Amino acid sequence: MKKISILGATGSIGTQAIEVLKDNPDRFELESLSIGRNVDGLREILASVTPKMVSVMDEADRKALQSEYPSIEFISGEEGLLAVAGDDSDMLLTAIMGSVGLGPTLKAIKMGKDIALANKETLVAAGEIVMQEAKAHNVDILPVDSEHSAIFQCLRGESPSEIKRLIITASGGSFRDLSRDQLDEVTLADALNHPNWAMGKKITIDSATMMNKGLEVIEAKWLFDLDIDKISTLLHRESTIHSMVEFVDNSIIAQLGNSDMKGPIQFAFSYPERLPMDNPLDLDTLTQLNFKPMDFDRFRMLKLAYEAVEIGGTMPAVMNASNEYAVDRFLKGEISFLDIEKIVELRMNEHKVIDEPDLETILYYDEIFKSDMR
Amino acid sequence: MKKISILGATGSIGTQAIEVLKDNPDRFELESLSIGRNVDGLREILASVTPKMVSVMDEADRKALQSEYPSIEFISGEEGLLAVAGDDSDMLLTAIMGSVGLGPTLKAIKMGKDIALANKETLVAAGEIVMQEAKAHNVDILPVDSEHSAIFQCLRGESPSEIKRLIITASGGSFRDLSRDQLDEVTLADALNHPNWAMGKKITIDSATMMNKGLEVIEAKWLFDLDIDKISTLLHRESTIHSMVEFVDNSIIAQLGNSDMKGPIQFAFSYPERLPMDNPLDLDTLTQLNFKPMDFDRFRMLKLAYEAVEIGGTMPAVMNASNEYAVDRFLKGEISFLDIEKIVELRMNEHKVIDEPDLETILYYDEIFKSDMR
Repeated sequence: MKKISILGATGSIGTQAIEVLKDNPDRFELESLSIGRNVDGLREILASVTPKMVSVMDEADRKALQSEYPSIEFISGEEGLLAVAGDDSDMLLTAIMGSVGLGPTLKAIKMGKDIALANKETLVAAGEIVMQEAKAHNVDILPVDSEHSAIFQCLRGESPSEIKRLIITASGGSFRDLSRDQLDEVTLADALNHPNWAMGKKITIDSATMMNKGLEVIEAKWLFDLDIDKISTLLHRESTIHSMVEFVDNSIIAQLGNSDMKGPIQFAFSYPERLPMDNPLDLDTLTQLNFKPMDFDRFRMLKLAYEAVEIGGTMPAVMNASNEYAVDRFLKGEISFLDIEKIVELRMNEHKVIDEPDLETILYYDEIFKSDMR
Repeated sequence: MKKISILGATGSIGTQAIEVLKDNPDRFELESLSIGRNVDGLREILASVTPKMVSVMDEADRKALQSEYPSIEFISGEEGLLAVAGDDSDMLLTAIMGSVGLGPTLKAIKMGKDIALANKETLVAAGEIVMQEAKAHNVDILPVDSEHSAIFQCLRGESPSEIKRLIITASGGSFRDLSRDQLDEVTLADALNHPNWAMGKKITIDSATMMNKGLEVIEAKWLFDLDIDKISTLLHRESTIHSMVEFVDNSIIAQLGNSDMKGPIQFAFSYPERLPMDNPLDLDTLTQLNFKPMDFDRFRMLKLAYEAVEIGGTMPAVMNASNEYAVDRFLKGEISFLDIEKIVELRMNEHKVIDEPDLETILYYDEIFKSDMR
């Protein structure tokens, strides 16, 4: 029985992860979980599963929940996240949003827990540090993103030295059929309407700006220990091919499936085994897959991400934090869609890069670039 | 240095295999080869490589060639094929057409040589016997068909028990856009015009009748040790996805590449390594891949192949031999295109099946069903 804990249990990945646990009660056991402020979402989860410990953001919620569920231990704040990361589980799923996942992830790694990683920002901000710690503690980092799970699967049994390049597919997001001029007019509601995937708000906006693909490119660099020039992207509107790997002999291995995150989640949990699942891709109705080269002029955020990696040091963390800040303002209706990339580009241009930053330096820049810098 | 010998060196696979050997002179060495009657093709090969031994079909050719190339040993007839199979090489590529490849393949296996298998008929007629011998002698059977090479690659690092099914793609062949009624009118020249692959005549006709896919289904059953109900087919006109494997968790792994047999040939030669190659699939010009469920009423030969496997015993060998006979007559202009399947179906219906046949029994039925049975 594998004991699994979840950071971010009420989010899109978190709730699907709990379904996976419930689908395989003989294989997986939920040890503990964290939520933010979604107490109603937590109540839904606790109607069918009973973890030993639950972390919530606010102390007031903790008190109320503790008397409502006396058999569960409740903790709050950052301390709560670290307690979940440091519990008795075998694997931690980091499905929490943003760079707040970094500290708990590192704690779990240091305890020798395998990580099911659904928090891109962890590797974008501090990929080098996280992967070094994982290596030092002999810990598997199992990707939960559909793209990285696909690449991870395509690389099974293959030799890393024989990789020519990764080909990360991109649906193009909500605005893929609009020109840059048309982007001036788009609304928040338009941006939240992703064609293929039902996901959280932040990642849906990141898909529309293509920053999501930029974060994935950086994440892939660290996960698979590859130079950035071996990581390419391809527009593929159906998202049926989740990603591909091209090898030195020109053979391309691809992974296909439904737009359903339960697949990557379950594979991270059951790895190296594959467990039966419902809801296969229906090949009887599969008629057409479309592809188009990535357009870096149309999707400038992706270009910024490649530039951030090439500059290195604190720049990827600054790009990521600036993007979190800008997307947050867009979600609040304070800025326009195209302002997101203007803010990120401006902040990157102004930043004086620190080379080989330690964790404190990264967290410092993360903090200030996530703020309005007043 | 791996020593490789080739049965069928002047055919489509044979000549591409020699290119692969010449592309990698530091890795592979040509030990010996066989041809049929294409002496001019042999002279072209001998202009750039010098094997130790060459087998030709006719004794007259042998005599002439022996005095023309005194440094090479020439042999003729079936004895010649067996001499090539029994030489000092590490691997035998069986790129010879038809069931004549069976005896030499078994001889090479018994000598402990790995087999690069481009001769479908070997496994169709005698899959059980061949795979048993390969297992007993600890020999790798490396597929050279693009479909089986794709599946072999998709299965790297995977567990056979986790396979849900193989999905063998089919271009549909020369007549894929014609109805059954329109097939009444087609000519030999039409049939030889394959949309994606430049191949030998027999296999091009087999592609048009869809018998090629039937042979591949049976070959896959033996190569990958799967029940026939775990082997499916899918129409995919571009042949870019060479085949796929669906696993129990619904994850589908696919292999993609150009319609170039040098890839599968080189991978069989270099396995488990991948060696650099020219001519990658150009993803910048990849725009669309199309799929359609297989139509067993339109492509009745494929249905016959599934039936032959389910009946078992001598039936697959009888189907294969009847098909060789019928295709040969079609190539000679003696029968119409639709007569091919009529002949195969009639002969299968008439055949009294022998269960668990030994090799002699299989070869006996192969012989009589390849003849006009007068």
